[in-house]
Amino acid sequence: MSYKKLGKILGKIMILESILMLAPLAVAFIYKEGIKNILAFTIPILALALLGFLLQLPKPERNTLYQKEGFALTALVWVVMTLFGAVPFVISGDIPNYIDACFEMMSGFTTTGSSIITDITAISHSSLFWRSFSHWIGGMGILVFVLIFIPESNEGSSMHLLRAESPGPQVGKIVSKMKVTTRILYLIYLGMTVLEVIILMLDKPISGYESEKFFFSLLATFGCAGTGGFGFIPGSMELFHPFSQYVMAIFLILFGCNFSLYYLLLIGKLRQVLKSEEFRSYFLIIGAAVAFVFISLVGRFEAFPQEYTTEEAFRHSLFQVASLMTTAGYTTTDYHVWPMLATTTLIVVMFIGAMAGSTAGGIKVSRIVIAVKGVCINVRKLINPHYIPKAKFEGKTLEERTINDVFAFITLYFFLLVAAIFLLSFDSVNAQVVTIASDAGTYTVKHGFFSNFSAVLTCISNVGPAFEAVGPYASFAGYSPFSKIVLTLTMLLGRLEILPVFILFSPKTWKKI
Amino acid sequence: MSYKKLGKILGKIMILESILMLAPLAVAFIYKEGIKNILAFTIPILALALLGFLLQLPKPERNTLYQKEGFALTALVWVVMTLFGAVPFVISGDIPNYIDACFEMMSGFTTTGSSIITDITAISHSSLFWRSFSHWIGGMGILVFVLIFIPESNEGSSMHLLRAESPGPQVGKIVSKMKVTTRILYLIYLGMTVLEVIILMLDKPISGYESEKFFFSLLATFGCAGTGGFGFIPGSMELFHPFSQYVMAIFLILFGCNFSLYYLLLIGKLRQVLKSEEFRSYFLIIGAAVAFVFISLVGRFEAFPQEYTTEEAFRHSLFQVASLMTTAGYTTTDYHVWPMLATTTLIVVMFIGAMAGSTAGGIKVSRIVIAVKGVCINVRKLINPHYIPKAKFEGKTLEERTINDVFAFITLYFFLLVAAIFLLSFDSVNAQVVTIASDAGTYTVKHGFFSNFSAVLTCISNVGPAFEAVGPYASFAGYSPFSKIVLTLTMLLGRLEILPVFILFSPKTWKKI
Repeated sequence: MSYKKLGKILGKIMILESILMLAPLAVAFIYKEGIKNILAFTIPILALALLGFLLQLPKPERNTLYQKEGFALTALVWVVMTLFGAVPFVISGDIPNYIDACFEMMSGFTTTGSSIITDITAISHSSLFWRSFSHWIGGMGILVFVLIFIPESNEGSSMHLLRAESPGPQVGKIVSKMKVTTRILYLIYLGMTVLEVIILMLDKPISGYESEKFFFSLLATFGCAGTGGFGFIPGSMELFHPFSQYVMAIFLILFGCNFSLYYLLLIGKLRQVLKSEEFRSYFLIIGAAVAFVFISLVGRFEAFPQEYTTEEAFRHSLFQVASLMTTAGYTTTDYHVWPMLATTTLIVVMFIGAMAGSTAGGIKVSRIVIAVKGVCINVRKLINPHYIPKAKFEGKTLEERTINDVFAFITLYFFLLVAAIFLLSFDSVNAQVVTIASDAGTYTVKHGFFSNFSAVLTCISNVGPAFEAVGPYASFAGYSPFSKIVLTLTMLLGRLEILPVFILFSPKTWKKI
Repeated sequence: MSYKKLGKILGKIMILESILMLAPLAVAFIYKEGIKNILAFTIPILALALLGFLLQLPKPERNTLYQKEGFALTALVWVVMTLFGAVPFVISGDIPNYIDACFEMMSGFTTTGSSIITDITAISHSSLFWRSFSHWIGGMGILVFVLIFIPESNEGSSMHLLRAESPGPQVGKIVSKMKVTTRILYLIYLGMTVLEVIILMLDKPISGYESEKFFFSLLATFGCAGTGGFGFIPGSMELFHPFSQYVMAIFLILFGCNFSLYYLLLIGKLRQVLKSEEFRSYFLIIGAAVAFVFISLVGRFEAFPQEYTTEEAFRHSLFQVASLMTTAGYTTTDYHVWPMLATTTLIVVMFIGAMAGSTAGGIKVSRIVIAVKGVCINVRKLINPHYIPKAKFEGKTLEERTINDVFAFITLYFFLLVAAIFLLSFDSVNAQVVTIASDAGTYTVKHGFFSNFSAVLTCISNVGPAFEAVGPYASFAGYSPFSKIVLTLTMLLGRLEILPVFILFSPKTWKKI
């Protein structure tokens, strides 16, 4: 491991984070928050800038990064960003406990959106902004950002970092075109963000929050763009008007698309977009899932508390599927009390996630498609031992290696899920009874196996809210510090698609070479 | 597909089943059951014998079986055995509904032990015997039995059938030595069965059931040997004395071992047995799991209803881990109300299952060991792209192909789990409240997501009881016929390790060649 090279890149990231923190500092000034909130950002900004400067002083022995260094660095950067990013919450007193603050910050950067805050109305504007802004930053990847916009960075090294940070099994499309394309992708991201803010501004303000219209539109958009999903008023997006809810649902689905497709659109290759298998599967799954949830809500085959009109049932179905499948995690109603068909559908889409190359988490639609094709190939090989697979994916031959990598990934996903659920089972929160107040009324739930299962699923898939005692109207505050650390790491594992985090914690990585 | 060859083997199996059914018929005579119970077995016995005879009349074009035919045939045999085996329950009136009867029979042959019977005391002796006997038959495989003991069967064909029916990723050990070895394995199976019956007979009888001592020892042993787990008195094994419970726990663990190891023991290769990685991992996991459950019970970090002495806590921990990990599913207490650490540990061992080449279900310990090694190889390859894996398993080089097959299997296991849970979500049983009476008192549980999740897990891993509304003191009777069919197929998929069932239902298999 070349420590100096590592320090150089880490230093750059720290300076970047200090610059990004100027935004919430500005919010603190605009809303005339007290000296505590101003210091909350000023102190880490100065610390990051100073440390970032010092780390860049030693001249590295070589300018390239090996693959393992790239992977370990990526994971390290996310950890360091989180450790510093959590400081403002503690100083401002919005989240006094540092472990809680780290959970919240990791949840922000990894665009998970799980929260340990129990009373969102008590949080300052600057903290609310920083939380949601972290979704927007984390959505497209922190390192990618630095590497694309800082000219001197090395192409070869960048590729390793990109591979580690970009979600999905295939990064060839982005990597091969590198800088230019990726800058365009960032511009698309920025453009879509601005567009959503403008459209949300067209809606009438939320009653009781008239003065916050722009602030809320901005924060809601950050959460959509990064598919993060932190709420900033009680009930997540419940108080937003139907128009805004529809707009958000549509933008969530758009932000769950592979950004390469937008690039293709921009250069006029609409047909290629429509022919993309992942694109088709993505919309097919969304369509089917919305249909299942909608039927389960209007059919009322099982009793559940809410009385929706048909429009409401459709809107909530669309919104919840869009929000949980793109792994944002915004909510418009208490879906935890919904019938089993709706519940199960939502859990399935939380596993699947959105498209590779988007800001979303989960296993990713492309991996699911590849795995299904892989299974078919295996069956065919057994039926006919002489069968030579000629399966294709996105027009290219599907290599056996790719299929095996996908199988390995899903196995690992499954193992981690089981391991994290096991670790949570030591928590004394288990079997406690939690009171929930939502649009479904006030009811109690036991913190049972389903709570832990869905908590881990929501963290590894970077969704946000879960079910039962950690459902959409509850928080993760009840977990012990140990469980919070487990869930924080689970989010990071999910965001970086597991292996980089393993490499970060492997002693072999840190041998001097 | 060579239909005549298929008919020939199927015919043999049907004759075998008719012979096996003479045993419960004898039980009906011994217990002087009415004409209905006698007819219940006589009718299918005659039907099976006649059909079996007719199917063997046409002379097959060729005497060999292709791989796909072997796989499809294996799955078909299990289906046919179940369809006929379920008939006695309907005629005797013990299980009047045919779908329920098929569920029960498939649960028997696949050694699952999930039951739809709500009042076990109302079931006749002959039906109780047939249920438990089916575990013993299914444990070692139906086809293997026929192929080993009928001399004219073809070696090459047998291998494909063995591959399809033997659990675990490696069958080389058994296949290569074929007939002779497998006959020895059957003798070991028989010997251990007799031994367990004798030891259980040493215990004092269960009060209230003094006259049933031999009958119960036999049935309990059938369930242990096949790791099936059907109960035959209220409360599964709860009424058995501690001595018998310890004996059963130990025999369950022994029947969860790879039978090749017993063969090695017999020929004096103890050192090779002790060196087996799967053997070590199996006992390591059992030891760890018992420790976790025991700590969770005696520590009382969470409140739960039962008040165990230390000995009771240890006994129940050992018994439940042994029973659920070997996928038998016998119970001695209501484990559903146990603390979360115990619950989660039990769920983890239900996933893992016992050793390959045993009578147990689940993913199998060897696959878990191979998958963990595979993950380590993947991480190392990322750290060092020039790394050449030289991992070994059971002393042999671990081929990349083997690892990939294991990853593919676990992915498929995970997909099927999700798919079956989704199908159960359509059931109107969901959200219903069920009253449970057990040694933990009388309480109500809601049929929620955890019920469906654990129901599918218990069926695909061939365990038996699940949690919540389908817990150890509940039954599967509440599910709709559709859900019961789904669960029946899930058991078959689990028992035959998925792919043979896919091949059975693939139209390509049934093309005339």
